[in-house]
Amino acid sequence: MATRRVLWFGAGPARWPEEVLERAARRIGFEAGGGLSVLEESHRGAAYAELSERVEARLRRLIPVPDSHEVLLLPGGATMQFAMVPLNLRRERESADFLLTGSWSKKALEHAASCGGARVAASGEASSFTRVPRAAAWETDPSAAYLHLTSNNTIRGTRVSEFTAPDGVPVVVDASSDVLTRDLPLERIGLLYAGAQKCLGPAGLGIVAIRRDLLARAPETVPAMLRYRDHAAASSRFNTPPTALVWLADLMLEWIEEQGGRAEMHARAEERARLVYEALDAAPEAFEPVAAREDRSHTNITFRLRAGDEEALVAAAAEAGMGGLKGHRSVGGFRVSMYTGMPVDGAARLAEVLAAYARGAGPQGR
Amino acid sequence: MATRRVLWFGAGPARWPEEVLERAARRIGFEAGGGLSVLEESHRGAAYAELSERVEARLRRLIPVPDSHEVLLLPGGATMQFAMVPLNLRRERESADFLLTGSWSKKALEHAASCGGARVAASGEASSFTRVPRAAAWETDPSAAYLHLTSNNTIRGTRVSEFTAPDGVPVVVDASSDVLTRDLPLERIGLLYAGAQKCLGPAGLGIVAIRRDLLARAPETVPAMLRYRDHAAASSRFNTPPTALVWLADLMLEWIEEQGGRAEMHARAEERARLVYEALDAAPEAFEPVAAREDRSHTNITFRLRAGDEEALVAAAAEAGMGGLKGHRSVGGFRVSMYTGMPVDGAARLAEVLAAYARGAGPQGR
Repeated sequence: MATRRVLWFGAGPARWPEEVLERAARRIGFEAGGGLSVLEESHRGAAYAELSERVEARLRRLIPVPDSHEVLLLPGGATMQFAMVPLNLRRERESADFLLTGSWSKKALEHAASCGGARVAASGEASSFTRVPRAAAWETDPSAAYLHLTSNNTIRGTRVSEFTAPDGVPVVVDASSDVLTRDLPLERIGLLYAGAQKCLGPAGLGIVAIRRDLLARAPETVPAMLRYRDHAAASSRFNTPPTALVWLADLMLEWIEEQGGRAEMHARAEERARLVYEALDAAPEAFEPVAAREDRSHTNITFRLRAGDEEALVAAAAEAGMGGLKGHRSVGGFRVSMYTGMPVDGAARLAEVLAAYARGAGPQGR
Repeated sequence: MATRRVLWFGAGPARWPEEVLERAARRIGFEAGGGLSVLEESHRGAAYAELSERVEARLRRLIPVPDSHEVLLLPGGATMQFAMVPLNLRRERESADFLLTGSWSKKALEHAASCGGARVAASGEASSFTRVPRAAAWETDPSAAYLHLTSNNTIRGTRVSEFTAPDGVPVVVDASSDVLTRDLPLERIGLLYAGAQKCLGPAGLGIVAIRRDLLARAPETVPAMLRYRDHAAASSRFNTPPTALVWLADLMLEWIEEQGGRAEMHARAEERARLVYEALDAAPEAFEPVAAREDRSHTNITFRLRAGDEEALVAAAAEAGMGGLKGHRSVGGFRVSMYTGMPVDGAARLAEVLAAYARGAGPQGR
């Protein structure tokens, strides 16, 4: 493969390990399984059933998901869940609560509000979403259909550490940007969902872990294709699934398990975050982190420059073979996205670029 | 690649041309576009925008789709359209009409009926769906929100040749199993949809061609992710699309255009069907076609044996490197599915297997 390989820090679709891309290239053909490509295998056949169940089992081990919850593989990514969650969990005249911690939690609220009741339990908007409101200050509705929160906020780079709700109110978590990089307490979460494109592999696939008692909630008037229980009853083969995406997710999860699985993924995420935050904190004259220290994300690190200019840092990173570092257009500055496919060495190399930049941008260097 | 390559006649996911699989294997890595894999490219970047627009342009040329219609690339295949069509086109208290010509049109009706008004305009059920009711006999509702029909019926192997509805009632066509293999008169079709897995490539992607005036119909209470107009306004990048599936579809459509495009695909479909039907019709003592002659599908050819036994024919086909020929469990017998990726030579080879089988199974051969 090429020598121009870029170390990609984009917010998603995320970086893939080279080994996984090489396996994908090797296996997309037709050497295996009776002379068919994985693209040709019927989703009603034994080979696909095994693939689908293997992906589910890997997710169960890696998240981990207890037996109380069903694991579903669904088309459409997290935005499809913005529609499916309220359609399935919120009955007529019910309202759902939302913890606003950034743009994506706000979008989840807007989607839910367009088709029924939705209210804000707490918002970090006053701090421009650089802080996450503490659970003690959440004004939750004890009769809410559910409480929705986004466990990690990609744009400002914060994360939520409390997963509490009034008795009987299920917590719903969008974990698209940190699933498999940290502990998410499924025993206190009614429904967890994630688009696969950041931590699990391919764009356009959604995974859902739903407590079984919640499957019954969806009104009969919700189209079957949009009901969790129909997908659960059919073991995620209710309709023709996006077989290539499930196959790609399997390759990614296989690699994650080979690398050491859950504990190793968590340790790497910690280590990557430590390396980059230390580089930023070591040069306060050069860098201004965006998120409040106690709410810092471990997968999306955001900062602005106090000294020097952005183009120079972008150029220095590009020179070192790195890309995808520009901050979201609504925040500016920089954003370092490091999901499961980012090696610790990638973070270490970036930390070096930051340190070198700080030396050059400091008073001595100007 | 392997020598055990199977010539696959399954109903879908369908056969891929070897050249396309080889290109997919070559290009899934990271040689192109700045050192990123196509799996890593941001859906907000220029490279993906170009890919998405290229796929749309190819579909416009190949179906073809006039300027009056928008082309959309959506997650979820045809079953997602079973939900989206009624949610978008049928307003409160309205009903939709359905032409029942087989299991899939019945499913489309059931999905639509679960969330609103739906009625049967005509049904081929009395003939076990081996015949398609003529348009003159359709009892259409002039106030229907739309008339839904399935242009080709994969299970019994029939096709619909009339696309008419009362003035002002849009015709909605599920063309999953024959798009690109025949003319579908978009000037008389309000909305055409297809799952990509048979004629366009990968499972789990849906394509929609919708007349622009119909975009306005969806009630505001339909979640945005399920509204055609939101996807249209965002050029099929409303949310993170299934980028790998769109990329695979592009490879398949690129190949189709290289092969000669629309005219060539139609000619091949005709020729494949002719070869297999001639082999069946030449041996009436051995084969009993399921579909009425005048309603025969050109992509799914169904028949039962009059003489000999099914296992022997399956074995003879397997011996010749062919698979996927068993009929749907609800019909039994055989089904020969031949979509865009099936070479004419594949049909010719199958016709030889059928002829040889008929000679062996006939009175002389027993």
